[in-house]
Order: sequence, then C-alpha cells, then structure tokens
Amino acid sequence: MKAKVTVTLKTGVLDPQGKAVQHALGSLGFAGVGEVRQGKLIEVELAETDRTRAGEEVERMCRALLANPVIENYSIELVD
Amino acid sequence: MKAKVTVTLKTGVLDPQGKAVQHALGSLGFAGVGEVRQGKLIEVELAETDRTRAGEEVERMCRALLANPVIENYSIELVD
Repeated sequence: MKAKVTVTLKTGVLDPQGKAVQHALGSLGFAGVGEVRQGKLIEVELAETDRTRAGEEVERMCRALLANPVIENYSIELVD
Repeated sequence: MKAKVTVTLKTGVLDPQGKAVQHALGSLGFAGVGEVRQGKLIEVELAETDRTRAGEEVERMCRALLANPVIENYSIELVD
C-alpha cells in the first residue's frame, strides 16, 4: 500500500518560499497571479496491507516526523 | 480560480530528501516502510476565471518556473 501525505502551512503562517515563487511569476510576465503557497508531498510505500492500520501508522508518522502540527496541516490519502 | 500544481521527481531520478525521510522513519521504529519520495505542492491563486485559459497559463508557469521538465513530472488541478 502507498500513502500520499500532503503537508501545507496553516493559514496565517508566513510562506517565504511561496512569496518568492509569486514574485518570480510576476517578473516572468504572468499577470493576475495572487497568493502562492508552497507545500510538500510525501509518498511512502508501506508493507502494511490493512487500510485502517496503515492509516493509523501514517498518522503517527506525520505527528512524529513528516509534519510540524504547530504550523502545518497534513492530509493522508491511501492508494492500493 | 485556484490551481494546485503537484511536482514529483521522475522515476529513476535519485531523491536524497526522500531517502533521508525513509531512514529517519526506520530510526523512529516504523517497520515496513519502503521507498519514500518527496515532491512539491504549489497552490497558485489566479485572476483568470476561464478554465481552459487558466489551465494553459498554469501549464506555461510549470514549464517556465515551477517544474524542471528534465527530471520532474507535474500535474495541474484547477479548483473554483
């Protein structure tokens, strides 16, 4: 089973990387570009085949390592 | 309109960041963790309201700045 974890910054948390992309797009001539936010996508291959247990394990991974729950939100998608 | 751009490394391209996460998960006691790959998620707010034109514009952004088509794949999702 494969887990796709999406980690994004919480609303209100400054995102300098996103700001840099936003300015670069403006410099390249793209008009009408509003806020840009950058997040992470982490794909984890799991030996676990039970959906419920896999979900719980990835949830623990997120809290322990993959995301910083103080400033980041995360969502987990399981793919067979 | 908002565009969600997912940028991932192509198969076969080495991913040291993913490898580091994989080893860290192992060290933390997570068993049965296979390959880990890390990608980027970029959310762009667009003034454009026409779906087709917005898609084309984001496609151009990807080729010009957001992704490196030599080593990365990208996918675009438009959200109203």
